[in-house]
Amino acid sequence: MKIGILGTGMVGEAFRTKFVQLGHQVKIGSRTANNESALKWAKSAGPNASQGTFNDATEFAELVFVCLKGAVFLDVAKTLSPGSMSGKVLVDVSNPLDFSHGMPPSLSICNTNSLGEEVQKALPSAKVVKTLNIVNCQVMVDPAKGGHPTMLICGNDTEAKQKVTTLLKDIGWRDILDLGDIKSARGTEMLLPLWLNLFGSFGHPHFGFKVVRG
Amino acid sequence: MKIGILGTGMVGEAFRTKFVQLGHQVKIGSRTANNESALKWAKSAGPNASQGTFNDATEFAELVFVCLKGAVFLDVAKTLSPGSMSGKVLVDVSNPLDFSHGMPPSLSICNTNSLGEEVQKALPSAKVVKTLNIVNCQVMVDPAKGGHPTMLICGNDTEAKQKVTTLLKDIGWRDILDLGDIKSARGTEMLLPLWLNLFGSFGHPHFGFKVVRG
Repeated sequence: MKIGILGTGMVGEAFRTKFVQLGHQVKIGSRTANNESALKWAKSAGPNASQGTFNDATEFAELVFVCLKGAVFLDVAKTLSPGSMSGKVLVDVSNPLDFSHGMPPSLSICNTNSLGEEVQKALPSAKVVKTLNIVNCQVMVDPAKGGHPTMLICGNDTEAKQKVTTLLKDIGWRDILDLGDIKSARGTEMLLPLWLNLFGSFGHPHFGFKVVRG
Repeated sequence: MKIGILGTGMVGEAFRTKFVQLGHQVKIGSRTANNESALKWAKSAGPNASQGTFNDATEFAELVFVCLKGAVFLDVAKTLSPGSMSGKVLVDVSNPLDFSHGMPPSLSICNTNSLGEEVQKALPSAKVVKTLNIVNCQVMVDPAKGGHPTMLICGNDTEAKQKVTTLLKDIGWRDILDLGDIKSARGTEMLLPLWLNLFGSFGHPHFGFKVVRG
């Protein structure tokens, strides 16, 4: 599959490596084409790896992973060519973390709204799927590292969620729960304060939440 | 142990039954003494069961369970005799659910504050412990019914948390995680939107969240 990855930070790095391993064609996008680390990766990661601007990556892909910090994508979305995301699957793995008031961060959007919903509003013709935002990026691409937690998935389009579910299974996710439409992103993003609390207690990010039943 | 239970709804009912079973002396408190259901229970549940006003229950007890809806206890706290909670353990199992904007409820306090913190501020001399608020009351008193999830516990007083942890173990809780001080209540209360989402999906409240590690 042709996958675009927006963002060249830790999360983007984890996914580009994983998806090339799985045999997908991956184009990573950043603010400017040919940034040093992006070029270096594209040259070293084999024929399925390429790089460009955010817009190049969305134009190229049938499925786009947003791996940008906080709510940054809401600004990036305005810079994409009209229609470049039309009908495509957009996987939003980010959280609206707000570090402006110190540590621990709070959420810039929550309770009666979510970043997932705002991303869907920003690109109405995209099929936004919110998932993977409830674990660290090392666990995102290797669920065994987090003790095989449950992965939650939300979005308005059933086919898009099925496509992403298949991809999650390929990565190794065993327990995937469909929460419903994109409004369900609220509950998943609001897990972050607890996640941050546990990260502080454990001193490492190798954990997650498993939904258990009686 | 002498336990006071504030509230005669479903949550209070679950705890009074359980604690009498475990051999504790239980006084249930409500707005007015001698309300019909409270009297009926006190007469039928054996010599360890009694009833009275909210204030009677707090005066009687060394450990008080707050089983009132939403943020109602913040008003009740103002009506208690000065000092009636001084040095005592107050277990807050409630959540700041706000039904005023329709279903599903949102939270009336969250993100940069929590009901747990507000309860501690309302009664500075009480040792507030926030726990059990992340599962349904049937699971609170019988964790097997929820698939043995993890129970999270928060509070400023270590001895109070130890006392409550012992009580949780007596009820059957196996996996108890101390999150830290009462500020950690934020993360546990913010689990509610996800809990409500899953309750809607499953159609029953017999589930919970287990923290798993890699």
